[in-house]
Amino acid sequence: MNRKDQIDWLRLARTETVGPVTFHRLLAKYGSPAAALDILPVLTRNKPIRICDTATAQRELETLDKYNGRMLFAGDAHYPLALTALEDAPPVLSVLGHIDLLQKQSVALVGSRNASLNARKLVHKMAADLGKAGIVVVSGLARGIDTSAHEGSLPTGTVAVVAGGVNVIYPKENTDLFHKIGETGAVISECAWGMQPLAQHFPKRNRIVSGLSVGTVVIEASLRSGSLITARMAAEQGRDVMAVPGFPLDPRSEGTNALLRDGVILVRDAADVLEQINSFLKPAQRNEQISFSEIVGLNDSGLSESPANDCFSSENLYSLIFPELSTTPVEVDEIVRVCKLRSADVQGTLLEMELEGVIQRLPGNRVCLVNG
Amino acid sequence: MNRKDQIDWLRLARTETVGPVTFHRLLAKYGSPAAALDILPVLTRNKPIRICDTATAQRELETLDKYNGRMLFAGDAHYPLALTALEDAPPVLSVLGHIDLLQKQSVALVGSRNASLNARKLVHKMAADLGKAGIVVVSGLARGIDTSAHEGSLPTGTVAVVAGGVNVIYPKENTDLFHKIGETGAVISECAWGMQPLAQHFPKRNRIVSGLSVGTVVIEASLRSGSLITARMAAEQGRDVMAVPGFPLDPRSEGTNALLRDGVILVRDAADVLEQINSFLKPAQRNEQISFSEIVGLNDSGLSESPANDCFSSENLYSLIFPELSTTPVEVDEIVRVCKLRSADVQGTLLEMELEGVIQRLPGNRVCLVNG
Repeated sequence: MNRKDQIDWLRLARTETVGPVTFHRLLAKYGSPAAALDILPVLTRNKPIRICDTATAQRELETLDKYNGRMLFAGDAHYPLALTALEDAPPVLSVLGHIDLLQKQSVALVGSRNASLNARKLVHKMAADLGKAGIVVVSGLARGIDTSAHEGSLPTGTVAVVAGGVNVIYPKENTDLFHKIGETGAVISECAWGMQPLAQHFPKRNRIVSGLSVGTVVIEASLRSGSLITARMAAEQGRDVMAVPGFPLDPRSEGTNALLRDGVILVRDAADVLEQINSFLKPAQRNEQISFSEIVGLNDSGLSESPANDCFSSENLYSLIFPELSTTPVEVDEIVRVCKLRSADVQGTLLEMELEGVIQRLPGNRVCLVNG
Repeated sequence: MNRKDQIDWLRLARTETVGPVTFHRLLAKYGSPAAALDILPVLTRNKPIRICDTATAQRELETLDKYNGRMLFAGDAHYPLALTALEDAPPVLSVLGHIDLLQKQSVALVGSRNASLNARKLVHKMAADLGKAGIVVVSGLARGIDTSAHEGSLPTGTVAVVAGGVNVIYPKENTDLFHKIGETGAVISECAWGMQPLAQHFPKRNRIVSGLSVGTVVIEASLRSGSLITARMAAEQGRDVMAVPGFPLDPRSEGTNALLRDGVILVRDAADVLEQINSFLKPAQRNEQISFSEIVGLNDSGLSESPANDCFSSENLYSLIFPELSTTPVEVDEIVRVCKLRSADVQGTLLEMELEGVIQRLPGNRVCLVNG
């Protein structure tokens, strides 16, 4: 696209009453933004609309350039592939930061602004662990859950979708975080440079949060939370919807538990999220993801990378595993998980115990202590 | 049943190595407890067992009478209908309190002994609300969740299933509660009067908790909680399993969230529980369907009709079947198939082996060798 085409594209996108769906229809019907701009005055002669002028569009592009931003046009090579699937894909996206992050597999983490300390802790770790597994974390730069999601994934790649212009920091307390994301992640918006976020921008923004992502995880949400809108949009977009459960007496669990009652996937940590989204990936990608998660220790066998485990002697293993056993059968996988040991070490020790007649093997990879 | 029949029934039930499954099989094969008691010394001549004597059984019945207790015999009009569906239905139940509660629709509320204050609050209200809806609440008189479940449902009807004798209060701190339940609810046990609860009694007790109930709700449970055994038994018994979610960072949520990941029903309050159990069969329909002898499935096995085997001696059968057994449970049907024997012959030989303490019966028509 040359500069003239870009300006026309942006003019049509910024024209009053031309929303994303209308934009794509006009484009499909008239072949190009220029042709659509030509016909618009005729189409709207009964109720004239204000068409964005060339100077305004040019100024927006120049300002974005000046601040090292990029404008992505729907259909561009750099435009997020995940968004192209949406009927209401944003015609343009302004980006500050690393546009390559927008092509990587992403998961959205969203939730309450007044999240509990525990929830912020959980989401920070979930974001960090997803990042280590090669997943980009998408959120909305809001207080609470969004903030922790971005903070946890700053080192690995995080995308903040903002409701106003890409340069408008909201809430102000996230100014530092905003700049950090601009450096190592990406801030994106479909709104014009400098636009203040209005109430109606937030649900529209939420469709981009979910639309960029293969799945959306809701962590703490009241029944009237905007996060539930994001969850609904994710479902409508055919993406995975996941929720972290909470105790029913906490009002911040009402939204997430209601989602779970409706059948969304219950997730407790990054491993659960990866298990869910990996069922979406092609086999080759899946293998890659699994080995990633193994390396960062998100599943049992991944702990083999931890050098600390090498210092466990056979006696130590015995004393760690024995208290977990009882005459009630227990799954070997559970012992591995509870003891945080290597699967091979647990199996080896259990074999010794079995040979000594201490335990008995049962179907379903379970063991129990032999009575007496 | 006259007093003599009751005493014989109790003697057979209290006889060493005669578990519930064996009890019902002996009854089906020999027609009456008296006949089974007569043949037992012959069946176990290789490894004699201690048969409960008349005086002991008589003393137990008299003691129960003295304390205004009732003994319910499987198949009695007053015996809980819900339990008759179980293959391992307790042959006898000792009851202190109101036996009519055992015929009403019940829900089990179980969970952690070291439950959080919030969980105890939630379960107290859930129990009270279920009670108001006409549901009897069943639990195990343990600390924590069980205690709150009983307390919440004291005014409307609560059943405590205890692990030792029906008169043995465990834990001691629930002495007051025990007596209150005895007044307005019911305390029940399958164990002999005065028996101290042992570790192995608790899982057996749990099958009665779940078996009495159309559904079991788990509220806060660690991954190794006994409540998960109750949940598994409820599932095996074809009853609803429900769990209250919790925030993943709380270890007391690990068991419940794991159940929810496995697909059990998420419930937040009594309304959710009622919604779930109301989709169950109407009690009237169930009454029609269930006849005790049908349910224990003894006619199917052909035991009662089988003529004496004329091809194989008892020793021959033993030597054919024994090599097919191991400490790993195996299905009886598979033994029949592999050994190419009549089902009745295999069942008869297995019964002898069981009485000799060579094998153990497991749910799902499976058996395994007893170690050592």
